[in-house]
Amino acid sequence: MTQKKQGNITGLIYPYGTNHSERMVNDLSRRSYEFRMQVLHMVHAHQTGHIGGAFSIAEILVALYFHHLQIDPKKPGHLERDRFILSSGHASALLYALVHLTGYDLPLSEIKNFRQWGSRTPGHPEYRYVPGVDTTTGPLGQGFANAVGMAIAEAHLSAIFNKIDAPEIINHHTYVIVSDGDLMEGITSEGASLAGHLRLGKLIVLYDDNRISIEGSTDLSFTEDRLKRFEAYGWYVQQVEDGNDLDAIDNAIRNAQSEIDKPAIIAVHTEIAYGAPTMQGKASAHAGAFGEGEVAGAKEVLGWPTQEPFYIPDRVLNHFREAVDAGEQYISQWQQRFDTYAQKYSEEAADFQRRIRGALPEAWESYLPSFEPDPKGDATRMATGIILNALAPVIPELMGGSADLAPATRTLMENSNNFGSDNYAARNLRFGVREHAMAGIVNGLALHGGIRPYGATFLIFYDYMRPAVRMAAMMRLPSIFIFTHDSVGLGEDGPTHQPVEQIFGLRSVPNLTCIRPCDQNEVVEAWRFALRNKDGPTCILLTRQLLPILDRKVYPSADCLQHGAYVISDAEGSKPEVILISTGSEVHIALEAQASLSEQGVVDHP
Amino acid sequence: MTQKKQGNITGLIYPYGTNHSERMVNDLSRRSYEFRMQVLHMVHAHQTGHIGGAFSIAEILVALYFHHLQIDPKKPGHLERDRFILSSGHASALLYALVHLTGYDLPLSEIKNFRQWGSRTPGHPEYRYVPGVDTTTGPLGQGFANAVGMAIAEAHLSAIFNKIDAPEIINHHTYVIVSDGDLMEGITSEGASLAGHLRLGKLIVLYDDNRISIEGSTDLSFTEDRLKRFEAYGWYVQQVEDGNDLDAIDNAIRNAQSEIDKPAIIAVHTEIAYGAPTMQGKASAHAGAFGEGEVAGAKEVLGWPTQEPFYIPDRVLNHFREAVDAGEQYISQWQQRFDTYAQKYSEEAADFQRRIRGALPEAWESYLPSFEPDPKGDATRMATGIILNALAPVIPELMGGSADLAPATRTLMENSNNFGSDNYAARNLRFGVREHAMAGIVNGLALHGGIRPYGATFLIFYDYMRPAVRMAAMMRLPSIFIFTHDSVGLGEDGPTHQPVEQIFGLRSVPNLTCIRPCDQNEVVEAWRFALRNKDGPTCILLTRQLLPILDRKVYPSADCLQHGAYVISDAEGSKPEVILISTGSEVHIALEAQASLSEQGVVDHP
Repeated sequence: MTQKKQGNITGLIYPYGTNHSERMVNDLSRRSYEFRMQVLHMVHAHQTGHIGGAFSIAEILVALYFHHLQIDPKKPGHLERDRFILSSGHASALLYALVHLTGYDLPLSEIKNFRQWGSRTPGHPEYRYVPGVDTTTGPLGQGFANAVGMAIAEAHLSAIFNKIDAPEIINHHTYVIVSDGDLMEGITSEGASLAGHLRLGKLIVLYDDNRISIEGSTDLSFTEDRLKRFEAYGWYVQQVEDGNDLDAIDNAIRNAQSEIDKPAIIAVHTEIAYGAPTMQGKASAHAGAFGEGEVAGAKEVLGWPTQEPFYIPDRVLNHFREAVDAGEQYISQWQQRFDTYAQKYSEEAADFQRRIRGALPEAWESYLPSFEPDPKGDATRMATGIILNALAPVIPELMGGSADLAPATRTLMENSNNFGSDNYAARNLRFGVREHAMAGIVNGLALHGGIRPYGATFLIFYDYMRPAVRMAAMMRLPSIFIFTHDSVGLGEDGPTHQPVEQIFGLRSVPNLTCIRPCDQNEVVEAWRFALRNKDGPTCILLTRQLLPILDRKVYPSADCLQHGAYVISDAEGSKPEVILISTGSEVHIALEAQASLSEQGVVDHP
Repeated sequence: MTQKKQGNITGLIYPYGTNHSERMVNDLSRRSYEFRMQVLHMVHAHQTGHIGGAFSIAEILVALYFHHLQIDPKKPGHLERDRFILSSGHASALLYALVHLTGYDLPLSEIKNFRQWGSRTPGHPEYRYVPGVDTTTGPLGQGFANAVGMAIAEAHLSAIFNKIDAPEIINHHTYVIVSDGDLMEGITSEGASLAGHLRLGKLIVLYDDNRISIEGSTDLSFTEDRLKRFEAYGWYVQQVEDGNDLDAIDNAIRNAQSEIDKPAIIAVHTEIAYGAPTMQGKASAHAGAFGEGEVAGAKEVLGWPTQEPFYIPDRVLNHFREAVDAGEQYISQWQQRFDTYAQKYSEEAADFQRRIRGALPEAWESYLPSFEPDPKGDATRMATGIILNALAPVIPELMGGSADLAPATRTLMENSNNFGSDNYAARNLRFGVREHAMAGIVNGLALHGGIRPYGATFLIFYDYMRPAVRMAAMMRLPSIFIFTHDSVGLGEDGPTHQPVEQIFGLRSVPNLTCIRPCDQNEVVEAWRFALRNKDGPTCILLTRQLLPILDRKVYPSADCLQHGAYVISDAEGSKPEVILISTGSEVHIALEAQASLSEQGVVDHP
């Protein structure tokens, strides 16, 4: 272990030259102390929040924001920004402090209302509500999988749009901070294995290795060799022995940037609640507020000059705002580069702009197929194969795949190859048997922008990916999820593979649209809806068994599906005795039931 | 790579001395060919099933059943048997063939009805329906996590019951076969990390390393160094280069048994559909049946003497039944050992027998606490802490823990320590932030017998463990799941942590009981129900916020909860105008609403 450069509690270096001070630390170190002060006030104000992790990663965030992140707080949604993900969302206080200090649109009043009702600073950071927050995190592992999706998006868009003889228009990194909890979650393992396989060199993970989780020391349950595991996945691994050593963190990030052929993880050996006089290094600091004594003690330990809450000297604010100057400059230079690019590649430039606006190519809907009536019919999953392949050539931003079930889910785009390190321009993603990471990655692709992503598996395996589908709904991402082998009609695979409560489950998620088409033409309409829908995820449920293709001269046009529901076959009289409601594979059965009841004299006679 | 001992298609050794034969192979090899024939017939009969994996692991199963497994097909539920789990449940045909051939109660007629409606041979193996099936598998990774639970149970029961000066009554292994798909699933990573941490030396995993999954070669998405990953988890790893080399498989299993301090994984390099003339090694063989030509070809390749379907020579049946002779003997000798043990340790023996019967200690219910009325009340999660700790000393088979949230879920047993390699007798499990593996492990504990397991986390994280909770319900296991931080009442953690659709989700799972107590005394009743319930899992939903403790002199006794629902406060008149229905944290609000409506003249006047 290397010598610690900044002190621990007993031998601390006070950054403000108070009478406790022994010598000044450099500017960057000072930032991390100032930073902790903000967190301290936020958590203390309402006695709620996770101070431990927020304190332990202060230097990591300072190193990132002061030296690396290419972001412009005035253009928080710019496509060519570095992405930053705090996968350990419980350390939100630190992120909010940073977002405020670096000049995003998050006023001090919101900082003061941390974790309060109606504030823009919820307990865990939320996409759309807080600027500078690139994805909603909190449920552990989700941010990590999103980051893999963002790195895939960057690699793909670079491969598609960058030209040898024009300025680069896509070249950014995805930075992630993860906790022990993130690394224990299965979704992280799945995503890490795939990221290593795909050699996503611009994905850089900083692991807050503080060896404490809520129940206590990680010795209780997490003693695996984390870095060796990531090496096995094909990652470039590094260790920083002293989590307060900004130079070491900085160097490790630079090394990671240089390794362009592998995703990188840097284990930064930190101390939970670093700077708290009695709680540093203790599990109790993970999710607890500090008492008055601890707050006063921390201020003294960290050399803060005043007891006034939320005190921020102007020079501090200025320093923090300078942190992002380089990024601001980078983003503003991007426009020049893009203009030069556009002179040479006007078509690509227009397509690029269209894609980042989220607009589909004009007239894409005219490529949607229609299906002739057929009493024998077909499995509705087959229609998806036809529709997807009709659209893939005209919607280049369609990108996706299946969790190792493509031949069954019919979700392979025949006009493209497999996305991989030998071909980042390809659009078929091979997720492997990793449903949870698949959904998280699809969300990451949607969050990144420029891509309309989809993921597919059997409906029963929706259970494996629910936390990520829920996040798509919370964030109102336009992710598309294809679930085939809907209902007991899937046949011989038996009860383990038969969905029962899954449809119910899908329908009960706020902001999620779940469509269960009754025949091939309704599948067309489901895809039309899904691709038009920018306000949340859409799930399309498809059968393995044959369903009749209804004659739309007899029944209303399938585009009635856009209304949500429709009367497909009315009673002849004006007062029906019975109303049959059904969806998907049971609609044709309901139609048969209607005919049968009608023959028996029910419904016909008002 | 070592020289292959048995041939591949082009240089095959025919086992039956037909005129194609060059030399005889040994008896065990022959078994694996006979075995494949059964599978071939099963899959061919109805043109359904996964032949590829079943063919590739034939030698692994032969090695296990002929040399290692201590099982008695006449006593398939004996506690002191080795457990065998086919985590890659899609290879079920092979397991059914083996179960039939080794003499379990599974007649040939069931084999002939493979994957057909009403048969006892469903597409994926199901616990309770098929003897010799130690857990239901199919959804990948579940079997692996169950196995970790079973190995924990074995380690714990050994530590509790075995005595230095008496014959050993617990000493068995848990064997698991996993596929590439299992190893890609997050639940497997979670379980493997924990198993390594816990040093579960009697867990032996055989990995069917056939490099093919449904979409094609594992090169598409799964190129990590699997064994290095398991080494990082703390496992003992081995590789068998030739999956048809029975001696090598056998030796590797023996090495794994000798390494008593670590769980072991053996990567067996197999070939999918080994023995099929044109489909061997191809992804198309993963989930497809063979045509007539392929079947005839396979029979010729494997040297089968007849075209007759389901032909099993008597000597084959005899050989297979001999396979389990040693196990049968072991199990029958167990009774002698146990009798000797019981003479010396009569109390322990009685307790052991009670526990394997699944009966709780007499009078346990008298230890349930009751709570005094209190308008201010308490969080219902606090009651669980009190109840659990009242019961823990009297129900020694209670064993469980939380996914790193014990201080919040209140699920630590204060009378015990942390289960770990230094103390397998302890009963508090520290699952880490691994909700999915937690549920799979809890199921494994329940499946093993002798333990009443529970697992706990926040209700929102039920989403992370749904596939495993569903398996508990399908298998009707008495797993207990504690979900705290129910509803928006959890407070400042914000929307990411607020359950909305989760209760709906729980209530829609067949065979699952979901209880949402309204106060501390209903929590008592919920625990009473959960511990009495042997017919399926029970989920208990608890609050973080305070709820009034109702005065049961005013309201009906809380034990009315055992009926499922009850009228807690009737309207005064005989014809209520309004009926208020509520559960959990909203019951006291409904009672206030009733009072308020009553004041306004509603309800009171019939």
